[in-house]
Amino acid sequence: MDIAVDILTTIVAQVQKPTLAFLLGGMILAAAGSKLDVPEPVYKFVVMLLLLKVGIGAGISVRDADLMSLLVPALAAAALGIAIVALGTVTLARMRGVARMDGLATAGLFGAVSASTLAAGMAMLDAEGIAYEGFIAALYPFMDLAALITAIVLARLGAARRIAATASAGGTATLTLGSGTGGTGTGGSGVIGGILTDTLRSPAISALLLGLGLGFFARPDSVYDSFYEPLFRGLLSILMLIMGMEAWARLSEMRKVAHVYLVYGLTAPLIHGALGFAAGLAIHHVTGFSAGGVVLLAVMAASSSDISGPPTLRAAIPEANPSAYVGTSTGLGTPVAILSIPLWMALAEALIGL
Amino acid sequence: MDIAVDILTTIVAQVQKPTLAFLLGGMILAAAGSKLDVPEPVYKFVVMLLLLKVGIGAGISVRDADLMSLLVPALAAAALGIAIVALGTVTLARMRGVARMDGLATAGLFGAVSASTLAAGMAMLDAEGIAYEGFIAALYPFMDLAALITAIVLARLGAARRIAATASAGGTATLTLGSGTGGTGTGGSGVIGGILTDTLRSPAISALLLGLGLGFFARPDSVYDSFYEPLFRGLLSILMLIMGMEAWARLSEMRKVAHVYLVYGLTAPLIHGALGFAAGLAIHHVTGFSAGGVVLLAVMAASSSDISGPPTLRAAIPEANPSAYVGTSTGLGTPVAILSIPLWMALAEALIGL
Amino acid sequence: MDIAVDILTTIVAQVQKPTLAFLLGGMILAAAGSKLDVPEPVYKFVVMLLLLKVGIGAGISVRDADLMSLLVPALAAAALGIAIVALGTVTLARMRGVARMDGLATAGLFGAVSASTLAAGMAMLDAEGIAYEGFIAALYPFMDLAALITAIVLARLGAARRIAATASAGGTATLTLGSGTGGTGTGGSGVIGGILTDTLRSPAISALLLGLGLGFFARPDSVYDSFYEPLFRGLLSILMLIMGMEAWARLSEMRKVAHVYLVYGLTAPLIHGALGFAAGLAIHHVTGFSAGGVVLLAVMAASSSDISGPPTLRAAIPEANPSAYVGTSTGLGTPVAILSIPLWMALAEALIGL
Repeated sequence: MDIAVDILTTIVAQVQKPTLAFLLGGMILAAAGSKLDVPEPVYKFVVMLLLLKVGIGAGISVRDADLMSLLVPALAAAALGIAIVALGTVTLARMRGVARMDGLATAGLFGAVSASTLAAGMAMLDAEGIAYEGFIAALYPFMDLAALITAIVLARLGAARRIAATASAGGTATLTLGSGTGGTGTGGSGVIGGILTDTLRSPAISALLLGLGLGFFARPDSVYDSFYEPLFRGLLSILMLIMGMEAWARLSEMRKVAHVYLVYGLTAPLIHGALGFAAGLAIHHVTGFSAGGVVLLAVMAASSSDISGPPTLRAAIPEANPSAYVGTSTGLGTPVAILSIPLWMALAEALIGL
Repeated sequence: MDIAVDILTTIVAQVQKPTLAFLLGGMILAAAGSKLDVPEPVYKFVVMLLLLKVGIGAGISVRDADLMSLLVPALAAAALGIAIVALGTVTLARMRGVARMDGLATAGLFGAVSASTLAAGMAMLDAEGIAYEGFIAALYPFMDLAALITAIVLARLGAARRIAATASAGGTATLTLGSGTGGTGTGGSGVIGGILTDTLRSPAISALLLGLGLGFFARPDSVYDSFYEPLFRGLLSILMLIMGMEAWARLSEMRKVAHVYLVYGLTAPLIHGALGFAAGLAIHHVTGFSAGGVVLLAVMAASSSDISGPPTLRAAIPEANPSAYVGTSTGLGTPVAILSIPLWMALAEALIGL
Repeated sequence: MDIAVDILTTIVAQVQKPTLAFLLGGMILAAAGSKLDVPEPVYKFVVMLLLLKVGIGAGISVRDADLMSLLVPALAAAALGIAIVALGTVTLARMRGVARMDGLATAGLFGAVSASTLAAGMAMLDAEGIAYEGFIAALYPFMDLAALITAIVLARLGAARRIAATASAGGTATLTLGSGTGGTGTGGSGVIGGILTDTLRSPAISALLLGLGLGFFARPDSVYDSFYEPLFRGLLSILMLIMGMEAWARLSEMRKVAHVYLVYGLTAPLIHGALGFAAGLAIHHVTGFSAGGVVLLAVMAASSSDISGPPTLRAAIPEANPSAYVGTSTGLGTPVAILSIPLWMALAEALIGL
């Protein structure tokens, strides 16, 4: 009972904090029909600066971290990415009114990670003075890639099976699995290689990896302390504003797709976050993973990809309907994930102590 | 005599200060044919950040202000907006060579407020360490809306009267007053509702109201202190540079319209500013309104809308010629209003003491 | 021997510093096929802010400098610009496989100055706490204009001579030297006036001169200290990232032109930098020019114009092939010049002491 009250109090207080307040402000503006908009080039630049900041910070931390303390959470992150997609495959993708490809793509996005949501989680922990492992952002690509690869491989396998069925019936179709991603690999590994390359080259993952590399190999500490770190919270407030407006705009697209997406978009972030929290809690008890780290693992699992994932999926699963998976992720998944951050913080405070 | 010397000294010193120096620098660059330009998306973003900053600051102040001390200046601001448009209607709009619709639209813009000019005034008071009520920016929408609504209603009434005259003569025209803004309201109130909605949804007013809301309902103080406030003066210097270049570019458009616009654009900011100053002085004596507040009320009255006003007018008074009202406002009204800020500061120092 | 080891150690350490690390990071990203890109409007704005900062800083310094201490380096800068183009004319432009116009345009770019490279040099000296004359940036236009004017005049004279030869043979061609740049001047001076005007109006030189003017005539110190100066190193890191990506992208264009451009692009920055260093060293011994100033004169001489120069050349020498001169400058000259900055720092430490 006390825990429930604590959780509620934390949530109410968090909504007044800049991160959530700007998100809600953006949603209210969009709902009121405001013509305010943040120009696309500025949006891309803000995201790039945030990802560079998160990456550089993680790179500097990884430099000093011992490999083992990084390895266990990294494996957990990858396992979570796969588990979330598998869960979506046996629930959402089997629902009536949901095309299998649409369901797989949506599950893939919900397994992948939103850098903005992760950054929002970090900012909220920073504001409370709650410590977390500096290398956390280095876990991002593990979960992100595991989820996207799982979803795309499942989609391709399904397509191949269907083509094979048609082929054995009609006899003329050829297996196109893996084509267009390199041509040299044998089926499955060619597909995975293609997805890996596409994802690593995507602007979001590129910026994050560049930051990681700069933080790890170079000495960018001076420019990090004088520029990237001080601008972080302000730029995040802008990004939250944009995401709030975007979320509202995407909601209208949801009207065209099955209602089950609405249920999935509202509940999946909470279920996935709880999975991530449980995994983090287990690592906490085994390796002394910090309470802040547990919260951020939950935030990553709860989040769904809004920037880097959609273009990858559009290229890899062209049969899927973007207004289903992008609408569900950006319109519902992301705001729910961001708004649920205080929940994981309150849970961590109750179960671990911060 | 001493007052005149004081005023002149203040003005000369202010021209060297960043705000005015960047404005003049922009005008000189444009006059010299420089190809330097600030890209449109950056310009929109700079304006948005400035308005968010001004709004958040005002929202935080309104939170702590008692309603009465805000109410009197707010009513004065609205009255000034109406008075300035009324003055323009009986002077500019009746001049030979001035189409009535063009005159009304120009008077509307000069009654409305320029957020950039207001921000410049605030920065100049800050630089001198002169205090003013934090809620000042909350007065902006009162003056802005009152002026735009007055101008547009006068224009629509004029159009309706003309149509009615035609109708009684010919018998076929139908009254279209208020159509396109909702369809449910009866004439006048439908028009006003439409203008209100359009203006509140405009990017400038949206950003300002969002800031006000965030400052009032949320706790954005940390991000305000670490991001919006420190960047304010630097971003304003960029905005002044853009406005200087824009002012020079618009001057050439003025050549196509009647010379009376030139006289209006050069003198109206000073007359309106004096009206605002007088109103502020009266409030100062009654309620103890600060000297800085008096200066900023004069600055608001002197300013003419350059960002939010023109699109509203273009939609609401399509018969008016934009190169008349935009040219007069952006090319003459805004630079004169900004350059006259030191005048109100010197006047306040002489009459009230800072 | 010790000097060589010192130089090598300095270079290795510098590559880890933010400026060079971001440049290399950009090149690696581009080589890996990353889709990260910095939107054009943001790029233009970042460059503008950097140039304003460099200009304002120089303007403030020139205000306090005595004219003589500025005059000698300024004349040396102009002489270096002319010497570098003359050197390119008798080497590159006479090579087999190099069209004379292409060679002249390339030499012009290598004689002109890159503001980004200069800014990188300043940031690296600042990071080491090495002092230099504040007015250094005021030397930029002297070298830049001298080089561009020399290259373009040589190109026009060559064209005129060829036309004259054709004319005396055939008898119908007319001398078009200087046409299109004003029409009033007699031949040569009309050309020079046109180039001067075009160059001074270019965005880069405009921003630099605006900054110089603001620093010299106005009192922008407050906004300089609170905005332009603190953002300098962070924005430079973004610019280096862009330039690294751009350099890699341009390298592929080089494949289409003669191999001699490859040799020129890789070696000319080092030879020109050595010329600049020698000139700086001479001024150091005569007038007490600082060691940091010597380094920056070498950096300016080593650098090749990547932003302001190409459009001027495209307009003035339309016969030259941009993929030759832009590719050689942006793809090879600029990264080599930036990567060689530590070399001049190490040389200055060995020969002058810092």
